[in-house]
Amino acid sequence: MTLSADAATEVVPRSVDATGVLATLAAPPPGVVEFNSGYLHASLQPERAMAAALARAGRRPGAWDRPPIEGLPELREWFARGMGGAITAAEVLITSGGQSALTTTLRALAPPGAPVLLESPTYPGLLAIARAAGLRPVPVPVDTDGVRPELLEAAFRATGARVFVCQPLFQNPTGAVLSAERRPEVLRIAREAGAFVVEDDFVRRLVHEDAGPLPTPLTADDRDGVVVHVCSLTKATSPSFRVSALAARGPVLERLRAIQVVDHFFVPRPLQEAALELVGSPAWPRHLRTVAAELRDRRDALAAALRLRLPELALPHVPVGGYHLWLRLPDGTDELGLAAAALRAGVAVAPGRPYFAAEPPAAHLRLSFAALAGAGEIAEGVRRLRAACDEVLG
Amino acid sequence: MTLSADAATEVVPRSVDATGVLATLAAPPPGVVEFNSGYLHASLQPERAMAAALARAGRRPGAWDRPPIEGLPELREWFARGMGGAITAAEVLITSGGQSALTTTLRALAPPGAPVLLESPTYPGLLAIARAAGLRPVPVPVDTDGVRPELLEAAFRATGARVFVCQPLFQNPTGAVLSAERRPEVLRIAREAGAFVVEDDFVRRLVHEDAGPLPTPLTADDRDGVVVHVCSLTKATSPSFRVSALAARGPVLERLRAIQVVDHFFVPRPLQEAALELVGSPAWPRHLRTVAAELRDRRDALAAALRLRLPELALPHVPVGGYHLWLRLPDGTDELGLAAAALRAGVAVAPGRPYFAAEPPAAHLRLSFAALAGAGEIAEGVRRLRAACDEVLG
Repeated sequence: MTLSADAATEVVPRSVDATGVLATLAAPPPGVVEFNSGYLHASLQPERAMAAALARAGRRPGAWDRPPIEGLPELREWFARGMGGAITAAEVLITSGGQSALTTTLRALAPPGAPVLLESPTYPGLLAIARAAGLRPVPVPVDTDGVRPELLEAAFRATGARVFVCQPLFQNPTGAVLSAERRPEVLRIAREAGAFVVEDDFVRRLVHEDAGPLPTPLTADDRDGVVVHVCSLTKATSPSFRVSALAARGPVLERLRAIQVVDHFFVPRPLQEAALELVGSPAWPRHLRTVAAELRDRRDALAAALRLRLPELALPHVPVGGYHLWLRLPDGTDELGLAAAALRAGVAVAPGRPYFAAEPPAAHLRLSFAALAGAGEIAEGVRRLRAACDEVLG
Repeated sequence: MTLSADAATEVVPRSVDATGVLATLAAPPPGVVEFNSGYLHASLQPERAMAAALARAGRRPGAWDRPPIEGLPELREWFARGMGGAITAAEVLITSGGQSALTTTLRALAPPGAPVLLESPTYPGLLAIARAAGLRPVPVPVDTDGVRPELLEAAFRATGARVFVCQPLFQNPTGAVLSAERRPEVLRIAREAGAFVVEDDFVRRLVHEDAGPLPTPLTADDRDGVVVHVCSLTKATSPSFRVSALAARGPVLERLRAIQVVDHFFVPRPLQEAALELVGSPAWPRHLRTVAAELRDRRDALAAALRLRLPELALPHVPVGGYHLWLRLPDGTDELGLAAAALRAGVAVAPGRPYFAAEPPAAHLRLSFAALAGAGEIAEGVRRLRAACDEVLG
């Protein structure tokens, strides 16, 4: 017999994977068009530059030594520069990937059982993190200008929450950018609620070629130490390049540091050294330019194919950054049925349900275009999705 | 102004670093003899072999790709073989260091607020992990044969705890090895309590040359899926070599996996590839033999110097594995005052207080010998400690 583990079954929140994060991490069957991956296609990853960076990191003396707990000073400095100038290197902690940084942050900011305000929709990984931390996700609707301030204010009032997590730039899944008008509102509302805004700045380095100037991170406007900023190199590099940063001002920084140290100690030095080698190499800006052009092309190819072949799927917003489109399905669509039919037809898509903490207002699909080889694969994926829609939508 | 963060000050357990873990992670002033480090001295780390392993890992195709969530199959297989045969590769998860593996384990096994049984004394990092997880540490005394079964049984009965964490081999700090008589008792008691035994097998690869055959891991005797086993490569290599394994049987494995994925996703592939390269190289068994001989020499040098120069410090047990000695101070010694005087005299030692979840029965010091260059530095450290004792003990 094995311990049937009443202990275990009762102690881990049953909902920890209600969002299906584990399922999406499983490799799809070969030949399937992957519209549901959040990572760059192998051809878009800076593979040679990363291999060179690791080799150079390995030759540095003391490559396996203990780095300073907070991270290598030069790497903290590099991340701080990318945050718009309001943050100094001393306010940055190096962490091991965005997922892990968000886990640390929520554990540091909210006790088990507390409410946490999240954008709605938001990405399933964040819902899983919140639930695994024993928190109660409270959804606050976003529109194409980001979170709606009046609803945010009401949610703080109704719940007494002390934390709001948001993605102000190319939000996942909607692609929304928090508007210039709303930015100060969000900061004011959080400050008045005595709460923190956790800014998950996850795709600033996956901007498209035609984007024009980007808004600075919200943390650059923050005069009061309200914002805890999270960003990562993973999305712009490769799944195993798990190097990220957490930044905060004031007393909360020490609490983030304490939780980070207890949970992880520090990020292994070879990864930090490799990150410094990579972002300091001439290949890095070239890589970012290539990705910006390739993502724009893939985005346009996918949007055009969808409009041509799947006009019944509404595409209200085409973002100029990030790696996905968010489609609204006709009322009454069985989105799980559609996703299953799509997989049978050879295309993996993400149904909208796991992006909502509560009952969704409508059926959706999220289609990612980062993991695809190019226009040919995109066309084939849309053709297969058309077949699935014919079967399910009738 | 920065947010003075009532939110933060109330939500992180104030006691999270009551054990002083953060302080011990700070680098000591230069010239100080480090009797308080848990890592091997640079000269004992397999630096060239690790650099070569990293370089080879970087040349493997797809070195930065996503590994399987549970870890590379060959590495899971390698860890499984080291666990005494009862565990298969399918029951092993690769994790990023022992600290992180224990955090995942406690979060998976016990809800916030629950009691968790810990050996007393135990290492401060474990107390910090338990407190950061919101758990209530319940100390169960150990003697030189490991945890005392009758007290373990009583503690389960009194608290209803569902988890007991122990280090059956060369326990930190006492060096105790759980005796052959007590091993089945501990398993029976846990099984009858419907509880898990978390086996932190942290120094199996830091055994001394004169140790003779070791007892197998407790997990090898476990017929009921009671044991969750944790082991790591870090202690036998270098601080940044954060590659470890978690093993469990039955339904709890899936819960460990779910928490591990939400908190960390996976261990970066280059570290896993480097681990495989390292343990598969001819340098690896040579390294372990060298460390076994060097640790025995350092242990003997330290024990001899202490007996000669500090006879008033009781040394009840000299272990044949691990990297530290546990000394009892004369009754009434101000151990914090002694540690402070020692640091002024140029030697860093760990006072005993942080090793106890509750009031200590006596004053202690822990002296580690792994981080020292050799016999000369050990002699100098003991000379300085003698000076501090003269000042404090009078």
